Amino acid sequence: MRTAIYPGSFDPVTLGHLNIIRRASTIFDKVVVCCMVNSAKMGWFTLDERVDMLKRVTSRYINVTIDSSDILIGEYAKRFEGAVLLKGLRALSDFESEFSMAHINKKINSTLDTVFLTSDEKYTFLSSSAVKELARYEADLTHFVPREILDDVREKSKKMR
Amino acid sequence: MRTAIYPGSFDPVTLGHLNIIRRASTIFDKVVVCCMVNSAKMGWFTLDERVDMLKRVTSRYINVTIDSSDILIGEYAKRFEGAVLLKGLRALSDFESEFSMAHINKKINSTLDTVFLTSDEKYTFLSSSAVKELARYEADLTHFVPREILDDVREKSKKMR
Amino acid sequence: MRTAIYPGSFDPVTLGHLNIIRRASTIFDKVVVCCMVNSAKMGWFTLDERVDMLKRVTSRYINVTIDSSDILIGEYAKRFEGAVLLKGLRALSDFESEFSMAHINKKINSTLDTVFLTSDEKYTFLSSSAVKELARYEADLTHFVPREILDDVREKSKKMR
Amino acid sequence: MRTAIYPGSFDPVTLGHLNIIRRASTIFDKVVVCCMVNSAKMGWFTLDERVDMLKRVTSRYINVTIDSSDILIGEYAKRFEGAVLLKGLRALSDFESEFSMAHINKKINSTLDTVFLTSDEKYTFLSSSAVKELARYEADLTHFVPREILDDVREKSKKMR
Amino acid sequence: MRTAIYPGSFDPVTLGHLNIIRRASTIFDKVVVCCMVNSAKMGWFTLDERVDMLKRVTSRYINVTIDSSDILIGEYAKRFEGAVLLKGLRALSDFESEFSMAHINKKINSTLDTVFLTSDEKYTFLSSSAVKELARYEADLTHFVPREILDDVREKSKKMR
Amino acid sequence: MRTAIYPGSFDPVTLGHLNIIRRASTIFDKVVVCCMVNSAKMGWFTLDERVDMLKRVTSRYINVTIDSSDILIGEYAKRFEGAVLLKGLRALSDFESEFSMAHINKKINSTLDTVFLTSDEKYTFLSSSAVKELARYEADLTHFVPREILDDVREKSKKMR
Repeated sequence: MRTAIYPGSFDPVTLGHLNIIRRASTIFDKVVVCCMVNSAKMGWFTLDERVDMLKRVTSRYINVTIDSSDILIGEYAKRFEGAVLLKGLRALSDFESEFSMAHINKKINSTLDTVFLTSDEKYTFLSSSAVKELARYEADLTHFVPREILDDVREKSKKMR
Repeated sequence: MRTAIYPGSFDPVTLGHLNIIRRASTIFDKVVVCCMVNSAKMGWFTLDERVDMLKRVTSRYINVTIDSSDILIGEYAKRFEGAVLLKGLRALSDFESEFSMAHINKKINSTLDTVFLTSDEKYTFLSSSAVKELARYEADLTHFVPREILDDVREKSKKMR
Repeated sequence: MRTAIYPGSFDPVTLGHLNIIRRASTIFDKVVVCCMVNSAKMGWFTLDERVDMLKRVTSRYINVTIDSSDILIGEYAKRFEGAVLLKGLRALSDFESEFSMAHINKKINSTLDTVFLTSDEKYTFLSSSAVKELARYEADLTHFVPREILDDVREKSKKMR
Repeated sequence: MRTAIYPGSFDPVTLGHLNIIRRASTIFDKVVVCCMVNSAKMGWFTLDERVDMLKRVTSRYINVTIDSSDILIGEYAKRFEGAVLLKGLRALSDFESEFSMAHINKKINSTLDTVFLTSDEKYTFLSSSAVKELARYEADLTHFVPREILDDVREKSKKMR
Repeated sequence: MRTAIYPGSFDPVTLGHLNIIRRASTIFDKVVVCCMVNSAKMGWFTLDERVDMLKRVTSRYINVTIDSSDILIGEYAKRFEGAVLLKGLRALSDFESEFSMAHINKKINSTLDTVFLTSDEKYTFLSSSAVKELARYEADLTHFVPREILDDVREKSKKMR
Repeated sequence: MRTAIYPGSFDPVTLGHLNIIRRASTIFDKVVVCCMVNSAKMGWFTLDERVDMLKRVTSRYINVTIDSSDILIGEYAKRFEGAVLLKGLRALSDFESEFSMAHINKKINSTLDTVFLTSDEKYTFLSSSAVKELARYEADLTHFVPREILDDVREKSKKMR
């Protein structure tokens, strides 16, 4: 059985992330979306909120599990035999930082391969940061985040102003 | 009548920005330079200071107006019929983030097109951040910012240290 | 009156080119699409065929003219007072070569500015070369070239094999 | 059963390609290496020679098959239910052209996903073209191509001079 | 005598930096590693700690000196007649910001040239930031920082959590 | 004594190349400009013509020598003890192919380091190919190639049409 581990901040999960999750769920036997505790980046949402949003928007995919981790993803992956890391590639800046992490993870865990999927064209320029920037200006977010979490993002954006 | 809206932080305006403004003023009937209230980035200058510096350095261009906005540029642009957004492209990192914003603005306001100008070669590597970094070290800024605001930047840099 | 000159090989014109032409026709008073005689690149279509296809697909735009030129675009542009060059930017490789040409054209004709539009997301990865590659394999081209020239491309591709 | 189709010219297969094949064979149930008949690029090796070299260097991997195709890879993939395309990403130029092809293939065959693997660091800068350039100068190729085909490349390079 | 000045934050020095220093020490008569006081970036290590670590890991290179500076590197370099700046290039993001700084330094000090070395392949994706991110997760850092400072980084990482 | 070997096609030498040569002549004890016999690329000028043009435009630099080579540059460099390769970096596309060659040369000749210089801003977008393209259109080349070879390029361009 082939498991793909999809790590990220998901602060918040976007339609681009969901597009990657949906496609991965048809390619791999199991997809574990792993919400990372990122001590360096200050986010909008707490870990619990991010995990909860992920669970709501992926409930229809039976082979997708939501988890979280405060250890290095290369270490975390050792729990799943023969797992691969899954990363979405949107644009140039992703390309460079993701390559960097893929190579560093390989050094930490030499049996861990990283597999990349490109997001659909319409999500090429979508990121959690862009969503937060738009939310700050009270923009309509229906083309950017899953319907199930629209209210969460709107409410949080009011608190962050 | 064709209006070009040129949004930015202008913290502070550089010779590169001014080069774009001057050229846009010959291409478009009207240029509205729009100083954005950016809640995410902490700047050196207040909105009023940035608007004031822009007014001083563009006073010679009769079809250039200075404005400011705290709403999404895609919304702001609706005030000007048939307006286009204007962006300066210097280098690779601009290219990616500007493309991203152009596509997102298109989703917010489907009739809003973004038009790009490249800055002159000698300004290819010039940015407001570089100016602030140089000012911090008390470097000579005459090749980087308009003469009219040299003292503003120098004085502010003393306070920021 | 503001004229935009849109130079290219158009071998053949794609839906991406047409998207740029349509949007430019709403921004500028006049758009001159200039089919370049390119001695360096061996194309599929003759200059006459490329001009003819352009005329057919742009017939609905009253302020768009089709022309051709065997002189440097920087020289050609001198025929139109106050004209700007128009270029479409799709992706990274465009960015670099187009910037290069924009700067070189500026040296040839110092009053000639280049204005860039980005193509719509769905055309980000579309090029005349990709169209020819697909045609070679007899792929369905309806998402890639204007309906009016589908037969031209199909027939030409049979001769090129 | 999950099949990965790995298309390419393999003119000739390099240690970088082999590295991708080996890793894919542990991730997917089956890997089909598909040697493309490329009418546009003039290669050094005939299709038969390229297929033969691929067979020799992959004989140890029981779930790897070598095939060839003169139809569009998006069409070819329809023969394998639920297959994904597999591409190796080395560097920036790959990134852009591969993204382009991935999106075009998606339009040709909407159920066909492309999965990317990055080659090992030591193969980041290795390509078939580099191998041919080095062979032309009679350089030692042991770090660049599989041992089994060293003589093939050396002999061919003598004929190409 | 040709002196190369190698400026940086070195927060902390990595095996990639050390690789550049070692190679520069064979190309230039003298290498001055200059630890910059960077008021903009909040680091993990104090200036004294960074200088001390650099001294320990470069003690074997007799023509390498460690220094620090709180003035613009373009000004600092004037102390060394005929000196060049030395920069390591790893990846795309380096390329752009380093080019930018090279051109700005040229404007500040017109006789100051910047010379670039690429780090060895195995360090292509290594940075001080990556080291800190890994240290945060208590990863094994032996492939990333010089042996002599492993304990410094481990201890500091405990305090930064 | 430190020798820098500057390899290239120089078909023809541009003001950008000359800018690199001039600056290298002040950094290194000796600069050997090595005109490569490139069997893959069809040039405008013969090897003899390219060497002759280089000799004319560098005659004022006493520590610059012009040579040519039909062997791999990594092998050629072994003739000069402790030599480094010198490459000019202009833009992104250079960056990637030059990095690739630097790493491959390191594998061929492990003691051979590559040192990069960036060309002056005004030459950022200048290449031999651009010069030939401009010459084809009879453009004024005084800003692009050294005065001494203007007639050579003009005459050759007439023959190439």
